[in-house]
Amino acid sequence: MNTLKVIKIGGKLIDDPTAIGSFLEDFAAIKEPKILIHGGGNLASSMARDLDVPVQQIDGRRITDDATLDIITMAYAGKINKNLVARLQGLGCNALGLTGADGNSIVSKIRDKKPIDFGHVGDPKSVNVDFIQLLLDHGITPVFCAITHDGAGQLLNTNADTVAADVCSAFAKAYTTQLYYCFEKQGVLRDINDPSSLIQDIDQKEYEHLKLEKVIADGMLPKMQNSFRALQNGVSSVHIGLASMITSTDNNHTTLIL
Amino acid sequence: MNTLKVIKIGGKLIDDPTAIGSFLEDFAAIKEPKILIHGGGNLASSMARDLDVPVQQIDGRRITDDATLDIITMAYAGKINKNLVARLQGLGCNALGLTGADGNSIVSKIRDKKPIDFGHVGDPKSVNVDFIQLLLDHGITPVFCAITHDGAGQLLNTNADTVAADVCSAFAKAYTTQLYYCFEKQGVLRDINDPSSLIQDIDQKEYEHLKLEKVIADGMLPKMQNSFRALQNGVSSVHIGLASMITSTDNNHTTLIL
Repeated sequence: MNTLKVIKIGGKLIDDPTAIGSFLEDFAAIKEPKILIHGGGNLASSMARDLDVPVQQIDGRRITDDATLDIITMAYAGKINKNLVARLQGLGCNALGLTGADGNSIVSKIRDKKPIDFGHVGDPKSVNVDFIQLLLDHGITPVFCAITHDGAGQLLNTNADTVAADVCSAFAKAYTTQLYYCFEKQGVLRDINDPSSLIQDIDQKEYEHLKLEKVIADGMLPKMQNSFRALQNGVSSVHIGLASMITSTDNNHTTLIL
Repeated sequence: MNTLKVIKIGGKLIDDPTAIGSFLEDFAAIKEPKILIHGGGNLASSMARDLDVPVQQIDGRRITDDATLDIITMAYAGKINKNLVARLQGLGCNALGLTGADGNSIVSKIRDKKPIDFGHVGDPKSVNVDFIQLLLDHGITPVFCAITHDGAGQLLNTNADTVAADVCSAFAKAYTTQLYYCFEKQGVLRDINDPSSLIQDIDQKEYEHLKLEKVIADGMLPKMQNSFRALQNGVSSVHIGLASMITSTDNNHTTLIL
């Protein structure tokens, strides 16, 4: 089977002009079929401040009200997505920017209103494999921002890690799928302040152990849960580390397998 | 040959919630292949005010500087384009939102810096017919905002009427092409304040005559120039009038032919 790389980049990478430039060169140079999923960075927060749109919270959880959804759509689907696409085109990569609404590529279910009404937030329930495959078959590289839709006219704010896991899982039958979560650390570290404490390989048993030990905690937990869910859905391997891992062969990151 | 309708809607329609809702229903109901091109409306101007981005002008002409391009990209490619796409999806039309960078669909040449440097403004030089045809062949409806790219990494602000004319012209060999410019009047009027003075048909000779008479002047001139350019490039007919004309059969608008 051919290999498909699904690569997710987060906000901190997007906010760093040098790092994103170097990442886009590496990404454009990948010869295999590939899909990019990007988070949002600081732009939405700074726009909300500049436009006096208060951050709505309930019990410390952010709510996506109408004004916040507008800002996210402008920042993620507009400025960030389109500039990534234009820059990739300039690097010879035929990129196409997408929300889940475009080509009906990802339909989400709005999140339950209980116990917390998160507003316009949804979790993917279907990925349009035929449409995305059509793009890949024609040498087009999909670039997704983490906005999906309900299929009935409403855009929905969606977790970018989840979008990446679900898009990758949807292609597990057609490709040998590799899911990459790029972030600002070398991978899962035993000691968060010591890069040399990198854990190179984690399987499900080790994961349960590291959770009990609290080596894996906080923000890393949802990323890991998405990763193991993807592996259970047939994804071949999940890789967590610095953006440079996508073209590096030194295995200096964390690889998850079942 | 099959018919392809290329329909351009302007800002005033986008800013009117009732009118745009009704237009999208009509548009979604068109069974033939179709392409939507949309302008921007007031959103970019109001965002520029709210974000304290001054409108840059030279000799009374607007300049697209970095900050203005960001706002246009957020407003047109982000909020407006993605909401149009999501709403069309809700109406059963498999829409896909695009800038010219997406799928390398429209490459523009940056406008000459003399006599006025307009900044990030470009005029289309090539339309990617193969890619857009691929979408149409799979029942996907392209929805373009008027942003293109230079192919080297830079987005460019582009006139929406020109984008519509150029996209329509590019398909003149493959389809019987009909170009629709929807705006807030019934068409070209002899007396701008009298809807009953509608001129139903204009050919090139009549157009030259109406220009001399100053019946066609100001903002209507570039629209007409784009229209005749499209006709010369093989477009079958150009229609100018209210948005309701796209599904109406009463011919109550202005039709241009060579």
